[in-house]
Amino acid sequence: MTPFFARENSALLTDLYELTMAAGYFQNGFQARATFELFVRQLPPGRNYLVAAGLEPALDFLEGVRFAPDEIDYLRRDLLFRHVRGEFFDYLAQFRFTGEVWAVPEGSVVFANEPILRVTAPIIEAQLAETRLLSAVNFQTMVASRAARMVTAATGKPVVEFGARRAHGAEAGIFATRAAWISGCAGTSNVIAARMFGIPAYGTQAHSWIMAYEDEAQAFARFLDVFPEQATLLLDTYNVRAALRKIIAAGRKPAGVRLDSGDIAADSRWVRAQLDRAGWQDVQIFASGDLDEKRISTLVRRGAKIDAFGVGSALVAPTDARNLSMIYKLVELEHAGKTREAVKLSEAKATFPGRKQVFRFADSQGKWKRDLIALDSEIHKDAEVLLVPVMRAGRRVAPAEPLNSARQRCAESLQRLPSRLLSTGLASPYPVQHSKPLRKLLQQVRRRIRQRT
Amino acid sequence: MTPFFARENSALLTDLYELTMAAGYFQNGFQARATFELFVRQLPPGRNYLVAAGLEPALDFLEGVRFAPDEIDYLRRDLLFRHVRGEFFDYLAQFRFTGEVWAVPEGSVVFANEPILRVTAPIIEAQLAETRLLSAVNFQTMVASRAARMVTAATGKPVVEFGARRAHGAEAGIFATRAAWISGCAGTSNVIAARMFGIPAYGTQAHSWIMAYEDEAQAFARFLDVFPEQATLLLDTYNVRAALRKIIAAGRKPAGVRLDSGDIAADSRWVRAQLDRAGWQDVQIFASGDLDEKRISTLVRRGAKIDAFGVGSALVAPTDARNLSMIYKLVELEHAGKTREAVKLSEAKATFPGRKQVFRFADSQGKWKRDLIALDSEIHKDAEVLLVPVMRAGRRVAPAEPLNSARQRCAESLQRLPSRLLSTGLASPYPVQHSKPLRKLLQQVRRRIRQRT
Repeated sequence: MTPFFARENSALLTDLYELTMAAGYFQNGFQARATFELFVRQLPPGRNYLVAAGLEPALDFLEGVRFAPDEIDYLRRDLLFRHVRGEFFDYLAQFRFTGEVWAVPEGSVVFANEPILRVTAPIIEAQLAETRLLSAVNFQTMVASRAARMVTAATGKPVVEFGARRAHGAEAGIFATRAAWISGCAGTSNVIAARMFGIPAYGTQAHSWIMAYEDEAQAFARFLDVFPEQATLLLDTYNVRAALRKIIAAGRKPAGVRLDSGDIAADSRWVRAQLDRAGWQDVQIFASGDLDEKRISTLVRRGAKIDAFGVGSALVAPTDARNLSMIYKLVELEHAGKTREAVKLSEAKATFPGRKQVFRFADSQGKWKRDLIALDSEIHKDAEVLLVPVMRAGRRVAPAEPLNSARQRCAESLQRLPSRLLSTGLASPYPVQHSKPLRKLLQQVRRRIRQRT
Repeated sequence: MTPFFARENSALLTDLYELTMAAGYFQNGFQARATFELFVRQLPPGRNYLVAAGLEPALDFLEGVRFAPDEIDYLRRDLLFRHVRGEFFDYLAQFRFTGEVWAVPEGSVVFANEPILRVTAPIIEAQLAETRLLSAVNFQTMVASRAARMVTAATGKPVVEFGARRAHGAEAGIFATRAAWISGCAGTSNVIAARMFGIPAYGTQAHSWIMAYEDEAQAFARFLDVFPEQATLLLDTYNVRAALRKIIAAGRKPAGVRLDSGDIAADSRWVRAQLDRAGWQDVQIFASGDLDEKRISTLVRRGAKIDAFGVGSALVAPTDARNLSMIYKLVELEHAGKTREAVKLSEAKATFPGRKQVFRFADSQGKWKRDLIALDSEIHKDAEVLLVPVMRAGRRVAPAEPLNSARQRCAESLQRLPSRLLSTGLASPYPVQHSKPLRKLLQQVRRRIRQRT
């Protein structure tokens, strides 16, 4: 049986060129300390902000990453490494991540070009981590950013994450649950993830339950027998109104009902009225079925009587922005006693060299008004700093943050955001500038590189 | 440390409602044998066919799925299950998948509404598998379908999968490598996946290698020192033409060069001419950087001199079709000695009841001309059948198929497809019809349900 689940901290969770470059640096005795920054080049179309997520899994990887002996043997047998000396493989056997990491805590609001994670480490170590850091942080930030919009659109009604079946495999489903929880989702349908994170699991019955019984009324009754207090009955297998009439006629009150298709706004109002007339004011109406923040927002605006929303595909496999274009860029190198800032010239859009910090300025009410991407060495009084040290010498500076702290941070961050940005539509952008010293450094570095090429 | 990688065969890799329904069926003594079919409702926009992938990981799960004692304890403590009798949890402790599975072999070409997988099992077992089957088969079929288009567009030049960093976590990256290999990709950058599947790993240097050295010529030289025969040198860190001139001037022939940005068609022609002039006809030109089948096709049409293509985001996080809308539908139930076909009436588009088979008809040259979705019991001479038995009584009927057999099947399938469908544009659709008995059954079942509701 092939193990499709990789060993969690395998150093082979990387792209081959990270290992060929590692061999190259090692064999050349190139002992530089490199700083890489992970950031999103631009906001997805129609988006006003991002929510950072994925840090703790990334740190887990950095703390635990190892080459197993059989993994080293595998590389050694690869013809690509035939001219690589044996000392390199000995080095891999004792390989550890020993670097320093600064990061924006999970649940923080961030914008394009702001470093979310900054790694400073011996270049081989910093480089090897690229693939896993990107695959963890890119996806979770994507999900958290979208989930925050859905939660906001629901104006206080719970939003439950139903993404597992649409996620790209089991780990993606677990990551999605985690990120959605950070952004304020009320729980998940994903059992293994609910257990892993100690958060509420949601779910009662699918259409197949109704279809399995010859008679819909009987299908409802048999479910209520087993879940007398918790059953959410699904109304739209055949006909929403007929289904609800059967439930009310039977006289057994369910915990809730669910609409998964059709004109949910109209149906929900009709269902609410019928439930209320039956004296069942406390029966909840749950809506699902290809919902996203725009549809949730429309439902709310149209006065839909919905108590909770379920979201899946739009969260884990978004329709509006398939992936963030998150990148991990070398920005600085300390080598042979010198510090040198790095930048690539081939980029369509400029990226900035140097080790950076993000300074955030608030108004007198505590609402954020602008961000400044600056050199780490700059001092800006009256500003909050976004990047904080999270790892030194390859170990976390504090225990892994509980997921609920990140969730709390996200809720607070969204409150401090200018309220126009919380719209599901595109708002006038939050001001993010690069500091003067940073812009000056970019010019210097470009000039230096142009002289050499 | 939180284990973001789930236990591979955990029965908690499911949505909670599968377990509440399981408890419901169990406690009600509802012992039905259910048939579910997994299929794609419609082709993504602009697509002419799909390539089925993900079967073997799905079968691995079905063979291995178990509840661990601590997982059962977790469920038992959930308030949702408070009225569920203890016998249910004893049942979970010995839970196995004991069903029968028919499937379209991996690498086969399929179309919308054609069952890719058909599970017949005690309803609890068939239901529980839904989440994992969908998350494995949906994503891999999505990747395989896109990869086939890229491989076709490359007209014989190798296409290498670079998706790991853009994939939604490590398992998604591994699944993507597997699916891309089935569809004819030449290898992957993903080291752990290359090892897992015994396929070629590709990669030499990133921009950061060039940026790490103060001098670009020196960066090339130091890499050639370690990889004298295998180095593919990256040209576009600062200036493509300046970089190539340095390489040629240094007089050490690399295995290849890579273009990752800019006007790749024009640059590749210029690079080829320079390399040839230097007598380096055998130096390969590799292209990458946000490539997809349309861009590959344009490059080929514009006479780009490219020997191999690298593709990432477009494969694992597609821009044209973020997810297939793959679904898993109850189509038939055997209960209390009777067989009953099932269908949901709330669907915007009709789905068909009954246990199905797909019959495929070829012309005298062996090219496929049409498919017929029919009842499993129908006989259509002169047709090939797509669904074959792969699992009986919970065990595979044959050892897991080697990945290369699926790859071979995909290559052969694409050759038998009407050639218009291989275009990167939208072709007139391949004819897929539902058989007369199937359409008649749909009417009967609908009539029966309407009478009851």
